[in-house]
Amino acid sequence: MADAILGNPLEEFSLIARLIAKLPQSRQTILGPGDDCAILAPAQKSQIVTVDSMVEGVHFKIEWTTPEALGARSLTVNLSDIAAMGGRPRAGVINLAIRPGLGLRFFDRLYAGLAKEAAAAKIDIVGGNITRASELAITITVMGEAPDGAMRRDTARAGDEIYVTGTAGDAAAGLRILAGEMRARGRHRAYLVNRYLSPSARLEAGRRLARMLPLPSAIDVSDGLAQDLGHVLERSGVGAEVEAAAIPRSEAYRAVVGDDLALALGGGDDYELLFCLRRGESAAVLSRRLGVAVSRIGRIVSGRQVRLIGAGGKRQRTLGVTGGVAGWNQLREH
Amino acid sequence: MADAILGNPLEEFSLIARLIAKLPQSRQTILGPGDDCAILAPAQKSQIVTVDSMVEGVHFKIEWTTPEALGARSLTVNLSDIAAMGGRPRAGVINLAIRPGLGLRFFDRLYAGLAKEAAAAKIDIVGGNITRASELAITITVMGEAPDGAMRRDTARAGDEIYVTGTAGDAAAGLRILAGEMRARGRHRAYLVNRYLSPSARLEAGRRLARMLPLPSAIDVSDGLAQDLGHVLERSGVGAEVEAAAIPRSEAYRAVVGDDLALALGGGDDYELLFCLRRGESAAVLSRRLGVAVSRIGRIVSGRQVRLIGAGGKRQRTLGVTGGVAGWNQLREH
Repeated sequence: MADAILGNPLEEFSLIARLIAKLPQSRQTILGPGDDCAILAPAQKSQIVTVDSMVEGVHFKIEWTTPEALGARSLTVNLSDIAAMGGRPRAGVINLAIRPGLGLRFFDRLYAGLAKEAAAAKIDIVGGNITRASELAITITVMGEAPDGAMRRDTARAGDEIYVTGTAGDAAAGLRILAGEMRARGRHRAYLVNRYLSPSARLEAGRRLARMLPLPSAIDVSDGLAQDLGHVLERSGVGAEVEAAAIPRSEAYRAVVGDDLALALGGGDDYELLFCLRRGESAAVLSRRLGVAVSRIGRIVSGRQVRLIGAGGKRQRTLGVTGGVAGWNQLREH
Repeated sequence: MADAILGNPLEEFSLIARLIAKLPQSRQTILGPGDDCAILAPAQKSQIVTVDSMVEGVHFKIEWTTPEALGARSLTVNLSDIAAMGGRPRAGVINLAIRPGLGLRFFDRLYAGLAKEAAAAKIDIVGGNITRASELAITITVMGEAPDGAMRRDTARAGDEIYVTGTAGDAAAGLRILAGEMRARGRHRAYLVNRYLSPSARLEAGRRLARMLPLPSAIDVSDGLAQDLGHVLERSGVGAEVEAAAIPRSEAYRAVVGDDLALALGGGDDYELLFCLRRGESAAVLSRRLGVAVSRIGRIVSGRQVRLIGAGGKRQRTLGVTGGVAGWNQLREH
């Protein structure tokens, strides 16, 4: 994990390397940062692995967030993929692309946020790599295990009920508030912006879901509810009917955005779980079982169409035919 | 491993995703690209993991290389870290940061090079993530296992003999030729440039080294021989004496660079292995055993100093005191 920079290595590199080296390790990590590879204890269960990246100007603006929140969120987006499989995170490695203008204090705070999130999720940051670039980018690979079987996108069947945790569209509204495209004040503003800047990965809900039989199909809502549902439908070769009125929206969303479903269906970054159950359960029972609010939003049907059933069940709108990326773009075209 | 881009996802994303999906998978991969996580079979042995990144303008210039060679090299630099531990690579995930101006044909060729290198190393590319950025960056995390124990940087002891595979400084000379800072022609030029653009990871030599007892201390030469030796010395808390005349240089290096050791000691990107053996062996025996040319270049001593013993054993030069990054910068200051 060395970095061969053309020219002299930056002084900051070794300083930042010390930050990584400070992150605590559990006993399952045999060797942490500082060698060519990290060494992990053997894994008895199926392993799962995911990679995600946060690029300045693409996924975040540095003036919108604290370094701590950015560090935490960089890990959360990966933990959310682990949650969507019903897995337990185990170890992560970080590739940090740094640009001029960000000092050691910034990275100290970024790593503090990351370390706190890692500790909460019981994951070791076992290594990393630092490189120069023209924009800050934090790329994290997380490895985990799926002791109860891994929930996949390709196992939804016609007749399954579709559920989602939490509320939809909050993060997208928060992003638009930060970007000055939407106006909000007070606690509603704080709630929505916080949902964007400091999302939670539904690790515990995912673990509990993975204990249900038959194993649910699941995905995390990162691209937006319609698009992520589209991924499940495409991989499973099925269609869906979604009830507009059932899309869960927060009080803040209703207060700031109103009745418009566009962000709830099309906005990303919520990091909630969307899942499909063969044997339907009431939302109340599932909410208790998973430890998080759950809403039933529709059902899987045969065919390849996605239909949005309007409030009252009268209006019907085709969300888009699955295949390729079903989601927001398709939604806007219809 | 979804990508939440502010604005519309690029059309190229789904096309490139199809390229990743085309990469072949072995039976140890339960689920390849296309879900929130990849799923791997359990690992009976200690696992090793490493991450490295290639950033346009920092680690490569696009006009110097073919897309195929760039794809292969992006993986090779990680495989070299696995080789340095004596490990066997198993699975990799790729984070691809793409910039405007590079078409599908470019990525098709990049993935072809990557796939060929992956097949040669018997590693599955099990997943990936694609994001926009202002420069092309290929970040790969490789997981593997170390069935015979992992060779570390922190186990060198006073009295150990120091060895290196292959020749030193070739890649650095090749880089300078490409950059127009050094002139060469014909086969010497081709050899040196190729050593930079298309390095090999010493996986087989690393595997064979890891079967020796006591387990050698090892590192790959990515930052440069002096600097990478410095990493071993710092982690092991020892010093070294290096014989200038013993630093292995290729015929092309001698023809183009001459007797100057600066690049052989300070230049990176060779991806050879540097290792320390408690029980010295002749270079000839080791070369046969490891299947690659091996040179004995010095020995580990107590203390923290690194001394370069000049040709004939008369002149002595202190390479730099270890602690922090010992290497090229320190060398130039002395």
